[in-house]
Amino acid sequence: MEQADIVVIGGSAAGLTAAITARRHYPDKTILMVRKERQVLIPCGIPYIFGTLGGSQKNLIPDTVLEGNDIDLLVTEATDMDREERILHTEAGEIGYERLIVATGSRPAMPPIPGFDLNGVYAIVKDVEYLSTLQQRLETAKDVVIIGGGFIGIEFADEINKAGGKNISIVEIMPHCLVLAYDEEFCIEMEKVLESRGINIRTSSKVKGIDGDGRVEKVLLSDGTEIQANVVILGIGAVADVDLAKKAGLRIGLTGGIAVDRTMQTSDANIYACGDCAEKVSFFGGRPSPLKLASIATLEARIAGANLFGIRRENIGTVGVWSTAVGNHALATAGLTEGMARERGYDTISVTIQGPNRHPGLMPGVADTRVKLVFERNSGVILGGQVMGDTTAGEIINAISACVQNRMTAEDIAMFQTGTHPALTASPIAYHMVNAAEMAIKQMGK
Amino acid sequence: MEQADIVVIGGSAAGLTAAITARRHYPDKTILMVRKERQVLIPCGIPYIFGTLGGSQKNLIPDTVLEGNDIDLLVTEATDMDREERILHTEAGEIGYERLIVATGSRPAMPPIPGFDLNGVYAIVKDVEYLSTLQQRLETAKDVVIIGGGFIGIEFADEINKAGGKNISIVEIMPHCLVLAYDEEFCIEMEKVLESRGINIRTSSKVKGIDGDGRVEKVLLSDGTEIQANVVILGIGAVADVDLAKKAGLRIGLTGGIAVDRTMQTSDANIYACGDCAEKVSFFGGRPSPLKLASIATLEARIAGANLFGIRRENIGTVGVWSTAVGNHALATAGLTEGMARERGYDTISVTIQGPNRHPGLMPGVADTRVKLVFERNSGVILGGQVMGDTTAGEIINAISACVQNRMTAEDIAMFQTGTHPALTASPIAYHMVNAAEMAIKQMGK
Repeated sequence: MEQADIVVIGGSAAGLTAAITARRHYPDKTILMVRKERQVLIPCGIPYIFGTLGGSQKNLIPDTVLEGNDIDLLVTEATDMDREERILHTEAGEIGYERLIVATGSRPAMPPIPGFDLNGVYAIVKDVEYLSTLQQRLETAKDVVIIGGGFIGIEFADEINKAGGKNISIVEIMPHCLVLAYDEEFCIEMEKVLESRGINIRTSSKVKGIDGDGRVEKVLLSDGTEIQANVVILGIGAVADVDLAKKAGLRIGLTGGIAVDRTMQTSDANIYACGDCAEKVSFFGGRPSPLKLASIATLEARIAGANLFGIRRENIGTVGVWSTAVGNHALATAGLTEGMARERGYDTISVTIQGPNRHPGLMPGVADTRVKLVFERNSGVILGGQVMGDTTAGEIINAISACVQNRMTAEDIAMFQTGTHPALTASPIAYHMVNAAEMAIKQMGK
Repeated sequence: MEQADIVVIGGSAAGLTAAITARRHYPDKTILMVRKERQVLIPCGIPYIFGTLGGSQKNLIPDTVLEGNDIDLLVTEATDMDREERILHTEAGEIGYERLIVATGSRPAMPPIPGFDLNGVYAIVKDVEYLSTLQQRLETAKDVVIIGGGFIGIEFADEINKAGGKNISIVEIMPHCLVLAYDEEFCIEMEKVLESRGINIRTSSKVKGIDGDGRVEKVLLSDGTEIQANVVILGIGAVADVDLAKKAGLRIGLTGGIAVDRTMQTSDANIYACGDCAEKVSFFGGRPSPLKLASIATLEARIAGANLFGIRRENIGTVGVWSTAVGNHALATAGLTEGMARERGYDTISVTIQGPNRHPGLMPGVADTRVKLVFERNSGVILGGQVMGDTTAGEIINAISACVQNRMTAEDIAMFQTGTHPALTASPIAYHMVNAAEMAIKQMGK
């Protein structure tokens, strides 16, 4: 029987990062990765296969990183865990382990509507062959309907649109696209950007069914509208893949992920879980969080991988930091939006500062940039931030994320020491984040 | 006699930000700004007047911001302060005050070498007319020598070079350009960039004198080399302008700035100082800091402006965060470099991570990005960071600055919750800052 000190099930963001982290922390242990995919896609890059990159082969995580970290690889499907004997069963045989990391990820959520199994309806399955079929199908498709206007939906829409000559529609059940992650005013701006690029957006629209004779022909909305469709893409979210964990009797959490404590340990002390398959708790209040992001997966993996033979790290909970982009328009968020914060019962003060991200504003490459910060009124502690701007928005949000993680107050942020430069950032006098904090303090009447 | 509750002397980054901050915190007070310049230049934008922007008029701080904040303006020179009677003397008459903010800035350091007063030798004086003369002179100049390879020197060199057809040389006394703010390996990279753009760099070169018959003709180096020069630009730093403060008997600090405590109060409880004219202390150890940056000035101004009628804020000391750019190559720093930290007696661990700032690395717009973090070995606390990359480097350094200001440890940073996106940032698996922290932990043997 094969044997490894550490066995990692899954080779995407969580599994890979957990294995690398385990290698860093436990240089003398043997590590084996068991995964079912021959080639592993970079999950966040999947929409870009369909436009910018032109194919799956340009969006792979190279296995050289395994070799470089002395991690063995076995491509097979894990079928069961004998927790008593510490043996992982796979289609390729049994593997003994000291510690196991479950990073089985997620699979697409399927809508409870008739017709989603028609030919021409695709979910976002992280599989090279599956996505190649979708890509081929899109080559001849004229009418494409994307169900779900979250970040996956809008990125797919924009990328597929780059080929030209297609009618692309996004159908979103909520009043706006992206509304689960951004306050309305940002969602509206992003919808305008998408519409200016020729994409049809139907918000507050419920899909009643997908229709066609074997092959998909149209999407039916509750209000009676029919949208022609050669291809339908489902982008309504993902559910934790916990089949293996359930079979082995690991405890499952409230949102359907594998239950873990703050050390990422499961109900079995020899088994850790991380990434989309693991239950998450929010940084805010500690309640279960349904967020599934590669950046969260890697954080959890760095905790799981370090803790295998002695607890070294704890998870402070999921802040929720991520960004999306359509052309040069980027939208980024960290922590709670104003809407989320109020829904959870926080008394908030929100301030938005809009202005150029260069100084003077006549510097080339300048982009109008909007930063919104949300504070708790009494403590002044930052709860979250949102940024709309050019590519630099993706890193501005990381500075804001640092503020959130450190529970900085508006006072702290008003005295934030920024680096500024005419060709790179806003002016130090008008730096968005700092001025938003100053205005919040004024509103707090402190 | 004119009277204002708050009088601010100086209208650049510090004075303006102090006045705006005072307005936010003291809405009922009258505020008067006294400054000598009719038009105020954006200080950091000055090099860009000579290339990218094409003139001073595109690099001005508009006075509308004063009107919008109900700040009165008097353009005149302040000549003395009667601290007993709280009266500011100016060339335009006497002004009574309750509180005074001194933001008189700095002036160029002049080298102790013969010939610097020749026609054709220019310092970086923040004055529209003076810089217009330099600009005119540059139009016909063929040989331009810049003395000093700090960020001002290299930005001037690159901007003047954009006109084409000139021989431009930077003469730097230290072994490398930028060496007071970056570790050597970054300085070397930036020198390569400058050289690839046709700029001559002479490091480890001491200027013995500037020679010419009335007009400058050449720069003489200690090793006997003579460099032809129609124009010489001095970029060797700045000294605090404390003439007014000295005359009025305010205490002066060790580096020549106006002595202030951590509330930015001077030795007179009714007078505050901020910006280049004020003495600074380092965030690290609290010793005097010679740094002079607009971003530091605005931080100090936000403290001074808030504290005028009751202490609300304290300065944690100067972290030192700033960036520079040559074309699309940006270089940014926060806190201590490895060299500075060792010089001050820290036992350091430094890690550099190099890789693409997009994922996959085949995404368009990708730039090779290098992040170096410096940690104190025993505590694991971050002491500083340096970033070389494209425009996003200017905001990556602000995320690092947040880590430094919060005295985060390598462990904290290894678990930093980043937002990542294929078109905007590095991969979550390989995010530079996080991996640098992980590698540092490994080196610490913790």
